[in-house]
Amino acid sequence: MISEKMKNLVKNGSAIRAMFEEGKIMAEKYGKENIYDFSLGNPSIVPPECVKNAIIDIVNNEPEMELHGYMNNSGYEDVRKAVAEYTNKTYGTNFDIENIIMTVGAAGGINVTLKALVNPGDEIMVIAPYFGEYDNYISNFDGVKVMVDADTEKFSINFKDFENKISAKTKCVIINSPNNPTGAVYSEDDIKKMADILEKKQKEFGTSIYLFSDEPYREIAFNGVEIPYVTKYYKNTIVGYSYSKSLSLPGERIGYLAVPRELDDFEDVMGAMNVANRILGFVNAPSLMQKVVKEVIGNTSDLSVYEENKNILYKALTEIGYECVEPKGTFYMFPKCPISDDKEFCKKAKDFRLIIVPGSNFACPGYFRIAYCVDKRVVENSINSFKELMEYYK
Amino acid sequence: MISEKMKNLVKNGSAIRAMFEEGKIMAEKYGKENIYDFSLGNPSIVPPECVKNAIIDIVNNEPEMELHGYMNNSGYEDVRKAVAEYTNKTYGTNFDIENIIMTVGAAGGINVTLKALVNPGDEIMVIAPYFGEYDNYISNFDGVKVMVDADTEKFSINFKDFENKISAKTKCVIINSPNNPTGAVYSEDDIKKMADILEKKQKEFGTSIYLFSDEPYREIAFNGVEIPYVTKYYKNTIVGYSYSKSLSLPGERIGYLAVPRELDDFEDVMGAMNVANRILGFVNAPSLMQKVVKEVIGNTSDLSVYEENKNILYKALTEIGYECVEPKGTFYMFPKCPISDDKEFCKKAKDFRLIIVPGSNFACPGYFRIAYCVDKRVVENSINSFKELMEYYK
Repeated sequence: MISEKMKNLVKNGSAIRAMFEEGKIMAEKYGKENIYDFSLGNPSIVPPECVKNAIIDIVNNEPEMELHGYMNNSGYEDVRKAVAEYTNKTYGTNFDIENIIMTVGAAGGINVTLKALVNPGDEIMVIAPYFGEYDNYISNFDGVKVMVDADTEKFSINFKDFENKISAKTKCVIINSPNNPTGAVYSEDDIKKMADILEKKQKEFGTSIYLFSDEPYREIAFNGVEIPYVTKYYKNTIVGYSYSKSLSLPGERIGYLAVPRELDDFEDVMGAMNVANRILGFVNAPSLMQKVVKEVIGNTSDLSVYEENKNILYKALTEIGYECVEPKGTFYMFPKCPISDDKEFCKKAKDFRLIIVPGSNFACPGYFRIAYCVDKRVVENSINSFKELMEYYK
Repeated sequence: MISEKMKNLVKNGSAIRAMFEEGKIMAEKYGKENIYDFSLGNPSIVPPECVKNAIIDIVNNEPEMELHGYMNNSGYEDVRKAVAEYTNKTYGTNFDIENIIMTVGAAGGINVTLKALVNPGDEIMVIAPYFGEYDNYISNFDGVKVMVDADTEKFSINFKDFENKISAKTKCVIINSPNNPTGAVYSEDDIKKMADILEKKQKEFGTSIYLFSDEPYREIAFNGVEIPYVTKYYKNTIVGYSYSKSLSLPGERIGYLAVPRELDDFEDVMGAMNVANRILGFVNAPSLMQKVVKEVIGNTSDLSVYEENKNILYKALTEIGYECVEPKGTFYMFPKCPISDDKEFCKKAKDFRLIIVPGSNFACPGYFRIAYCVDKRVVENSINSFKELMEYYK
């Protein structure tokens, strides 16, 4: 009796649940400390102390009716002002209240954007490998997914394929840098090249092609690498941000959309996103957490932990013989499997007490994802298992 | 460049914004205290003290990673357990963790339910007058709205029309008792009659017809009137609840779905709703607020204020000569306009500094809605304006 669209999803949902259950069984069998679970992108470090202080300060001092009440569907004006000003100061943008919509996390922000823009049959481009959940977001609005083949050399963008696949029906391109699952960061050159192609194609087809930049990992960038702020290179950019990773608050569902004034049909798009936020059932981003964001803006968790984990793991894995593009950010790594069948490889990994995710789940078979947002000891202790796993196939 | 579906909505959105702006202009012209704004269903009383205490207690004592982290998309198990147990104790249900999904408010819950159930073209029934936002939720999933004509005598259900309009394509019926905009409460007899008709039609068509009971106003019930717990009368019921009104927390977006084990295809429906919660972009209900709900469960704001306002207003309006069904709950009243054109009437009302909403917005022209979730003095001071407005038409 459930909807046709949901039938496969529920079946897959059960498969993931089965994997999760298997992990629990493994933990019972070998002891929890002997299982190296790299499956989930759940932050492993506590939020900064200022979050807790802000919550207590706000509930003690802000008038309750405003703090917990309805506001404009786009969020509190003082919060949006603070977000705009922080972005201007940090990235040299030119935002004001009108450019910011507070959302229920980044997932909420993408759905709001697609609801606002997409007619059934419109094409939405994704760059392989990519976060599999995009498929569901696109399907929510009967968009047609068009996938750009992976650039497995650098996990940048396969520009040739990108250019070839843009059509008159391309409504939106979703990018994600720093990238889940590869940890790649698109350089300024990459962004410029992409912008040039998009400009050219817009002219060719007489259309507007919106670029959605999904940026929950913006602050998790290693060794000082710069993450270009995309609106400065391509005006039809919508930035989706979440505090889930930078403040370790994934359960609180708080993020925002940032949209430059220069965007084609700016007023209509912002109006549509405001309405979409309401009618999709979000109504508004959680109110207390909006106020927390304002109070702690610019702070992050101690994100250096992820870089430390990356360094240990990247060094060890390449020494063992895994081929891997070195991540420049996030808490993911995407090495090549020593065999072509990534599902078989990840299944075998369980015999070595490693829980890793097949690249197929990110539309990039032959690879696997390690989510190293775990305790450093887990990383260190896992290395022997990665070694044994490689030896098994040698 | 925005989607076709959004075009009209944005236009309407602007109309409402225009009304809001007009209210602000009126406040400037006459002074805010001289404007009687009955337009919005925003709670007017503070949350109970225990909410603030719970927030502080929880952030001081719960482990941060769990408190702000991801959990099962359906919510924390301890929170769902607490909700189930409270419901069992209060309404004699037989719920456990598996029967509860925490949601981003009631609006989130309805969207999750419709996403899980509705194929394009499926019919969703609503009972006039009804909360206009249902139209958008139904449209989100390409459902076809079927409206049951109003029973303007009692604002119960026009059972004849209800029975006539159920078809083989009826997937879901949405009810809302206590009701926005009328304040009506469906009696046990009403619910039984409705259940009988649904059972009969299910048999006739060999279908499952799900009943969505939207209950954000459950606790705002006057003079001890009983609100039947619908799952006990019809097993294919999904209850949608929100703490927005009972705890005065509309901005926090916290509610739940309660589904009895006996529901047709229970496992599939719960699985689909769990996935829908994730892929619509909610991911999960805000985590801190879930924990707050567990801690304060059973408490409410001082809801007696609404009954007091109702008593003052109902007595005064009927004395003046307005025809009105006496509300049994909520903070709404739905009197008949003295002229047939409700839009004209509400426009004229502004000359008397009254902001009220035309019944047309609730698919019931010739009536108007008063949202008396306002300070008692606003209610008292407004009475003369209602009198002058009536005299204008006499």
